[in-house]
This record gives sequence, structure tokens and C-alpha cells, in this order.
Amino acid sequence: MGKIICAGLGPGDPDLISVRAHRILRSARHVAFFRKAGRQGQARRIVQGLIPDDAIEYPMEYPVTTEIPFDSPEYNDLLASFYDSWASRLETMAADRDIIVPCEGDPFFYGSFMHLYVRLRDKVEIEVIPGIPGMAGCWNATGTPVTWGDDVMSVLMGTLPRADLVRHMQVANALVIMKTGRNLPKIRQALALAGRLEDAWLIERGTMPGERVVRLQEVEDHDCPYFAIVMVHGQGRRPERRIPEAAQ
Amino acid sequence: MGKIICAGLGPGDPDLISVRAHRILRSARHVAFFRKAGRQGQARRIVQGLIPDDAIEYPMEYPVTTEIPFDSPEYNDLLASFYDSWASRLETMAADRDIIVPCEGDPFFYGSFMHLYVRLRDKVEIEVIPGIPGMAGCWNATGTPVTWGDDVMSVLMGTLPRADLVRHMQVANALVIMKTGRNLPKIRQALALAGRLEDAWLIERGTMPGERVVRLQEVEDHDCPYFAIVMVHGQGRRPERRIPEAAQ
Repeated sequence: MGKIICAGLGPGDPDLISVRAHRILRSARHVAFFRKAGRQGQARRIVQGLIPDDAIEYPMEYPVTTEIPFDSPEYNDLLASFYDSWASRLETMAADRDIIVPCEGDPFFYGSFMHLYVRLRDKVEIEVIPGIPGMAGCWNATGTPVTWGDDVMSVLMGTLPRADLVRHMQVANALVIMKTGRNLPKIRQALALAGRLEDAWLIERGTMPGERVVRLQEVEDHDCPYFAIVMVHGQGRRPERRIPEAAQ
Repeated sequence: MGKIICAGLGPGDPDLISVRAHRILRSARHVAFFRKAGRQGQARRIVQGLIPDDAIEYPMEYPVTTEIPFDSPEYNDLLASFYDSWASRLETMAADRDIIVPCEGDPFFYGSFMHLYVRLRDKVEIEVIPGIPGMAGCWNATGTPVTWGDDVMSVLMGTLPRADLVRHMQVANALVIMKTGRNLPKIRQALALAGRLEDAWLIERGTMPGERVVRLQEVEDHDCPYFAIVMVHGQGRRPERRIPEAAQ
């Protein structure tokens, strides 16, 4: 009996992979990874030069979604069938071999692997190795701590309705906004309405080649990078509030 | 000229340290780390057997705080003096050597190192290596994804007033509550008032020996472990909501 090992890869720099995931990837024999049709795939790119040349690879290509609205029942059905199909294939393969599934960031934090995990966990032995979430690579890239003292941090998806974004942006101290891309104009409006726009940063490709850290206000309206996170740093709430102030 | 390298250690299992931090720790010559007076220190414990036996160690002992209220000006002054003093010492030492500062979790995420960082960043070269946040080790230990689809996740400190806790607990989908310990009864009350108590888990020593994952409702009132996190998993918001449901 084999097992499925999901290896969290962290934010993108291969040097930030955990020792455990690194060791397992270096000796991988069978590697399955998600990618968009026609792309190399972010996970596959990170493990380039790390997995053995003769490992057998199984690209799990997301179904094409450009012609189907993202929130439609058809989209959900298509995705569900995709996960059902790969869960079934991996279950069969794991009968006599270990399958390594490298995934960006931390697999249990908004990761695609969890859709396979919930389908397979009662049928196959699965190990999930945590990774540094992409957002941690992004706040590290800004060179400024994201949370101090009693700060409240909220993680928001740019796909949320604008009013929901504003409400959360008003009450949290530190903010991380993922799924930016075409949602960036809405995110910018919400930050402005919440009075947080001037403190917002856009981090593109954090810890990777081409890393870019820029104030969101300085980003042009037509510039909506896909692989980017927006964040607002916390300033430190009491009881430790006086310390960062004294240090400034 | 030397530099200061803060090495994020992740949640506690040394196998979850990043490849980069691991390499730097193995060749460390001078190692400074935080600890409470009279304790070994969590960071020091994690790097046991990893840093060279002949490395020179500088324990940075927090000033005693048990007789001073946590939110008093005296406490803040004492802490500020402590950080000032060590910032000065590390600046002097870094003139002719590299100093490695191992820190649990991710240094920029509620980490103590940031108090040295803001004091030193304009005077000394500093590198901060991100780590897997402790909370990621904890949700990994529960064996259940923490966030799906469009879930909002909020990170809260147990030191917040109860009413603030309730307000955030009501509007976020996934919750992580840190700084538990003696705040646990208040956290429990807040979760109950927000209608989230029955879905709350307590994770003690995630990824470390003695790891304990238990429903918060099953924890006795007098049982307030210090090194623990409380969390509530997200259930997945639209547009992907149907997928986890279909998988259940």
C-alpha cells in the first residue's frame, strides 16, 4: 500500500521549502501537480531541478473556465467532476506506490489539494506537510512586520462583494487580500471606502524572481497582476502599542 | 561587517524549518535567542542538535513581569528598555560577526524579533527568513483544512476585550485565537456568545512532542495550557461552496 503525500512548497523560493518536504521531493518517484491547461504550473516550476529527472509526472489540468462564469453551477459541476476524477485516479495509483503532490504555499490554507483530500482521506493514507503560506512570503518581502501586539489580522478574498470587503477592512488592523487579479479595482475601491487605501501595498511574485513591492496607490488601474497579494500592515494595538511608537 | 539573520523556525518540529534557515543554523557561530528567565526557551529547544556545539550563545532573557500588570506603563517601559539594551548589544556585536537569531513561527507575524528589527534596521544589515507560522502547524495537526473558497479568516489575540472578540468571531468564517493561557475562559465565553463554541478546537504544542488536539468544549475550565491556539475551521463560502458539501 502506498500513500499520498502533499508537500507544501511555501511562497515560491525553493530555499523556503521545509526540510521534510525537500527530502521527500528529492526522492519522489511519482509526482502529481495542478496546473492550468497549457501552462507549466506554479508548483511544477518551484520543484524544477529538485524532483528526480526520471520521476513520472501527472499534470492535473484544471478544466477550461474562461467561457463559464466563475460562480455558476456549471463551473462548480465542472470543478467537482475534475476533482472526483483525479481523486479516483490517485486512489488507484496509491494502491501500490507513493504519490507526491507538491502544492504552493500551505496546502490547508485556501489550497486546491483539500478538494482531493476530503474525497480521499477515508480511503487512502494521506500525509500533508505544511508550508509557509504565500502571504508570509509577501509580508516578508515588504520588510515590515505584518502584526504586532494585539493586532487583529483578517484574510479576505478579492472575490467577495465590495460591501463585505469594506466591512472587514474597517474592523481589522492588519489585512491580507488574496485572489486579486481582475478584482483589483474593486479591492482598491473597498480600501478607499474603508479609509485604508493609503496604507495598502501590492506584492507580486513574493520571494520569486520578478518580485515587486509597490504602494497600491501607485499601481495603474489597468495593471492587475494575477499572482499578487494586497496587504495593509498592522500598527500594533495595546498593550504593546508604545513600543513600536518609541522605535519609530 | 557582519549581519543579523533572524531565522524563522516554524511551528516546532525541526523537520519543518526551511532549507535556508536550516543551512544557516547548522553553520552558526553566534546565536542569540529570547527566553524567559530560568527557562530553556522554545526557540533554543527547537534548534537543539542543529546549531554547532561550539557556537557561542546569547540568551536574551525577558524581564520578569509577574509582579507588574501586563498593560501598565511600567511593563511597557521595562520591555522597551530590554529591547533597547539588546538592540545596542547586537549592533556592537554585528560589527565584526554574523549573529543568528532563531525565532519560533514566522518572525514578522506577532514575533518578538520585530522589536529588535525596528530598532536596528537602519544601522545593521538584517536578513529575516520567513517560517511556517505556529497556527499553520496547529491547523495541520487538526487534519482539516482551515479555509476554503471565499472564507474570511481572522486572527485574534486572547488578550482583547471580550466584546471585541465576540464582534470579530461573529463576522469571520475561520478563526485563529492566539495568546490563550489565562485568557481561555474569556475566549470560551466569547465563542459561546458568538455561537461558535461547538466548532472550536484547542491545539496544544502543534507539531511537537505532546501535541494535543481536542474540542474546546471538552477542555476543563481550570485547564489553561500556555502554548496553545484555539481555532474554528471555515466551511467554504461561495462560489466554491458546493464542492466541500458534495465531498462530505
